[in-house]
Amino acid sequence: MERFQIDARDGDARAGVLHLRHGTVETPAFVPLATSATVKSMLPSEVAELGYDMVLGNTFHLFIQPGHDLIERMGGLHDFMAWPHPIITDSGGFQVFSMGYGSVAEEIKGNRSGDRRSRVIHIGEEGVRFRSYLDGGERFMGPETSMEVQAALGSDIALAFDECTPFHVDRDYTARSAERTHRWLDRCVEWHDAHAPAWQQLYGIIQGGVYEDLRAESAERISQSGVDGIAVGGSLGQEKEQMREVVRWSLRPTPPEKPRHLLGIGDVDDILASVAAGIDTLDCATPTRLARHGMALVHDPAHRWRLDLAKAPWKESDEPIDPYCPCPACRDFTRGYIHYLIRANELTGKRLLTHHNLTFMARLMREIREAIRAGRLADYAEAVTSGGPARTG
Amino acid sequence: MERFQIDARDGDARAGVLHLRHGTVETPAFVPLATSATVKSMLPSEVAELGYDMVLGNTFHLFIQPGHDLIERMGGLHDFMAWPHPIITDSGGFQVFSMGYGSVAEEIKGNRSGDRRSRVIHIGEEGVRFRSYLDGGERFMGPETSMEVQAALGSDIALAFDECTPFHVDRDYTARSAERTHRWLDRCVEWHDAHAPAWQQLYGIIQGGVYEDLRAESAERISQSGVDGIAVGGSLGQEKEQMREVVRWSLRPTPPEKPRHLLGIGDVDDILASVAAGIDTLDCATPTRLARHGMALVHDPAHRWRLDLAKAPWKESDEPIDPYCPCPACRDFTRGYIHYLIRANELTGKRLLTHHNLTFMARLMREIREAIRAGRLADYAEAVTSGGPARTG
Repeated sequence: MERFQIDARDGDARAGVLHLRHGTVETPAFVPLATSATVKSMLPSEVAELGYDMVLGNTFHLFIQPGHDLIERMGGLHDFMAWPHPIITDSGGFQVFSMGYGSVAEEIKGNRSGDRRSRVIHIGEEGVRFRSYLDGGERFMGPETSMEVQAALGSDIALAFDECTPFHVDRDYTARSAERTHRWLDRCVEWHDAHAPAWQQLYGIIQGGVYEDLRAESAERISQSGVDGIAVGGSLGQEKEQMREVVRWSLRPTPPEKPRHLLGIGDVDDILASVAAGIDTLDCATPTRLARHGMALVHDPAHRWRLDLAKAPWKESDEPIDPYCPCPACRDFTRGYIHYLIRANELTGKRLLTHHNLTFMARLMREIREAIRAGRLADYAEAVTSGGPARTG
Repeated sequence: MERFQIDARDGDARAGVLHLRHGTVETPAFVPLATSATVKSMLPSEVAELGYDMVLGNTFHLFIQPGHDLIERMGGLHDFMAWPHPIITDSGGFQVFSMGYGSVAEEIKGNRSGDRRSRVIHIGEEGVRFRSYLDGGERFMGPETSMEVQAALGSDIALAFDECTPFHVDRDYTARSAERTHRWLDRCVEWHDAHAPAWQQLYGIIQGGVYEDLRAESAERISQSGVDGIAVGGSLGQEKEQMREVVRWSLRPTPPEKPRHLLGIGDVDDILASVAAGIDTLDCATPTRLARHGMALVHDPAHRWRLDLAKAPWKESDEPIDPYCPCPACRDFTRGYIHYLIRANELTGKRLLTHHNLTFMARLMREIREAIRAGRLADYAEAVTSGGPARTG
């Protein structure tokens, strides 16, 4: 059996099924973040009931707390967090580098004077030495560490260790960083082949910033490395049009039969565009993070599908967030009450909006899969982004 | 139909049913706190499913945020928080006075030099002027305010405005404070008779600190005032034995046919003793507050029925909190995972432990009611407090 089975195509978009150690994932799929081994405020059973097949665990955070060794002794991440379905883990690279971008840029440019506020101690070919945000202790993460942590977590899909270059760095930095990411990929593949569970899939991450040739080169290198899947990472530009272009540049050289994951993209229109370009899975903090800050996802393209419930107009609203949404927030409560919960910083408010936003995203992805199978993704995308009816049924 | 129907007696303990505007409450009942119009982290449907018939809303907090007038316009507290079952509201006295005990003591003693850190501006016969913790604005609460707020909230049971005297004050202060509470009760009854919904019940609160004669006098005054029910408040002493004595002193002069509520008591042995003394309902922050601090309620009298999951020994425990508990925390997760969630300050951890602790309390109260009806409350209490089996079935 193929590990990734494509059942339908609609232009460059594909609908299919990923067959993984802990179950199947219907694609295209949005992957909710279980950063710290929990989808914040939700129970695993609720996430599964919403129709999610896979969540994303965070290699860096779990490495720091509670430690991958502990999770391994507790039976791996699936058992630890009581999520028996597929898990993808990110590489940790994004978090490690986020701690000290000043330092990274300086180091790659040959200037070793670090940013004093950074937790990064040293970045080199081997990897990154840094101070733990938990206890200040010195830690190290490189390609082999990342692979070792992800093997211990036992995720269904591991991501190769990379540097996620930010938008503000220049072409030269981006090129040198991507080259190092490619060397790290080779080390990841080597470690993974030798030590990781045979069933754990490894995805390489395409970098190259906003430069067409660098993206193409990176995509070719990743594709030739023999990894099980392709991830698109790094800066995708500052504007939506540029982001879509970068995704297209990145996917063009990749083998169409391999599954493709897009890192950190979660706006409705971006999801539609990415899926249309051939992306199979995406993860993003946005739906769950927005919820904790009082923002509900609604069918309103004019406001980026966001409804800020903390705002004064909702203070006495007796309307639900969305009368057609079956989630507990919309079924039982008014905008006025949720406005109050958010203003009062109540846990129940964060929980209700998280449930709502994940309900919204699950429905969007279900409808996208249906639209691809019906050969009318473009119509569906047009209806959703023009503010028309978002439902297919 | 009687508003309070006693179906069974076992010594001084009683089991029965409170008939209220929004439904019935099987007694003895523990009343979970919905301080800010939510049982923190829980949905109303979950609270009801656990077997709770009534929750307690906080008059002071809802007066400050979002305001009783707003809640009234939104259909009252039941509609606002989507809890269609009975609600009892406390009087606000406890919170108002907690803001400035230094000031209160000084004022009653004839010394007007206030505590600079206090939010209390002035305490007098009329009521209390203070600064809002939300916006610093000057607010006032007196007996009529408290009644007006509770009428607007539309709770099934309102509590008369009182001063909850702390343990450290002397007999003279306690006596004068109780006398003022009695004068405030008369004003509450007057306002309530004239303006409150006819179906809203009013309970008076017995004060008198740890002094037998003051408690007896207060209990007689409250009983003669014609209120629908009797609440026992104030300092109940520093030791469990003293608390039980104070409850007995308070209840002795009260008419046995009236329902009796005990304020702020929630330890397992205290609940058993209070119910044995004739208490019908109790509320306490403990079960839900402990949960948010990582503490699970378990059948362990030697440790006050508390299991501190933040402690190191649980770090790698693959046991559930309680293998016999049907709650989601015990059904799906290990102590080790919950230890981690609490250490990482994750919302999911607070939610799981809240659900567990309310499950524990609901079962305890169900078993207490069964034990009274079977005429063996003493045996049951002995079994629970000696560490024997806590289950009757």
